[in-house]
Amino acid sequence: MSGLIYRMPHRVKGYECDVTGEITLPTLINLMLHVSGVQSIALGNTTEQMLERGLSWVIVQYDMKIERMPHAGEELVLQTQAISYNRFFTYRQFKVFDANDQLCLEVMVTFVMMDFESRKMVQIQKDLIAPYQVEEIRNLLRVPKPEKLEQEGRSEQEFRVRYLDIDYNRHVNNSKYLDWIINTLDPKFIMDHQMVAVNIKYEKEVEYGNVVKSVMTTSERENGEFVTAHQICNGEDLSCEAHIIWKKVQKS
Amino acid sequence: MSGLIYRMPHRVKGYECDVTGEITLPTLINLMLHVSGVQSIALGNTTEQMLERGLSWVIVQYDMKIERMPHAGEELVLQTQAISYNRFFTYRQFKVFDANDQLCLEVMVTFVMMDFESRKMVQIQKDLIAPYQVEEIRNLLRVPKPEKLEQEGRSEQEFRVRYLDIDYNRHVNNSKYLDWIINTLDPKFIMDHQMVAVNIKYEKEVEYGNVVKSVMTTSERENGEFVTAHQICNGEDLSCEAHIIWKKVQKS
Repeated sequence: MSGLIYRMPHRVKGYECDVTGEITLPTLINLMLHVSGVQSIALGNTTEQMLERGLSWVIVQYDMKIERMPHAGEELVLQTQAISYNRFFTYRQFKVFDANDQLCLEVMVTFVMMDFESRKMVQIQKDLIAPYQVEEIRNLLRVPKPEKLEQEGRSEQEFRVRYLDIDYNRHVNNSKYLDWIINTLDPKFIMDHQMVAVNIKYEKEVEYGNVVKSVMTTSERENGEFVTAHQICNGEDLSCEAHIIWKKVQKS
Repeated sequence: MSGLIYRMPHRVKGYECDVTGEITLPTLINLMLHVSGVQSIALGNTTEQMLERGLSWVIVQYDMKIERMPHAGEELVLQTQAISYNRFFTYRQFKVFDANDQLCLEVMVTFVMMDFESRKMVQIQKDLIAPYQVEEIRNLLRVPKPEKLEQEGRSEQEFRVRYLDIDYNRHVNNSKYLDWIINTLDPKFIMDHQMVAVNIKYEKEVEYGNVVKSVMTTSERENGEFVTAHQICNGEDLSCEAHIIWKKVQKS
């Protein structure tokens, strides 16, 4: 593992949490990208250099392992580190620690470089990632794919893409896809279970005004964990796939 | 004007902004309430004492005057001060200053104390607000009401209340009503205009699963400003009313 480590404190605000008092997944995603943005500025604002070349980072996948979700009021340390890169992909790890330096969760994020005129992926430009002191690898890092929907028992909800879903980068914010996924679940299920892992892979962007369909299935594993598998569909297009692994909340 | 002043720095994060790069109204609302919560904790956590008595603060109205909306990356100072109270209402002012100590916006917020069993308003309990050193007044503070919808030219959108709209207090977060209001506007109108004032008055709470109707009209004033008037309706109930005053963006 290589790459400069960047750390930033964050106190969880009440409005960043859901009804259970735990930080929401969309907030976590936003905070992680914020921290990597701050690291980029600290290392000489490579993002601006990318813009000058007509390039931007696009997130392909988050693979998240959760020990516990932080609560409102907690003092966290958000840590980010570029891990490695190959011809087309870069890998960045995020870790969230609590006030006792215990790991709450870790996330592997896969990025690609995109030409924003052609909307096509380009080869990673080495000089742009040099400041992060990250290791070049020949192969792909093995990041598991989200589990597929079950054939039976599908449920779905529609969501219209709203003005405030579009962020400063003029795209539907990454966190919004997780918003649609979470908001398709049964609230009682969410409150009776806690997340163990989240895996989301982005396939095709949606746009303002689109009405997307959030489809899901639930299945139980032999070890008693549950897997909810998710798709966000935009007409005929698969926009993203995801799964969340849950275990029952131990009531004390 | 009385009451202890509390100030807190805040750097505007990219994800707190809309496509124009300006901080969103829902984020502003959340930040303001966060700051007053932090003041409460600093003054001995009166919120916890309220909970013990089965009471909570409920926001009745925001009346906002906007010089300019802060942008992504700006270093702000968020200031809050309890202004005065009478038998049933307390008034709190928020101000947002930029790095040059220039006022960006100010907001007068009206609160009531509610018994959360009976869901009824109760008289302000003086010992609970004593720590804020706030002045008692006999009369109501004059806060103008939101302008009414025009009879003609109404447009509307429906919004389903989602799981993530419910906050840690087990209610639909105040900011969500503004979310529905903003998301009913034409994006081109938002981008061609800037907000001068916002006034929102809450009437009746909505709940998870409700499908609310966000209705609006637009009118032009003689001075060239525009007024958009808004209602959030939940079936037969008026849930909140608002207006936003806009002026054309001066393109440079």
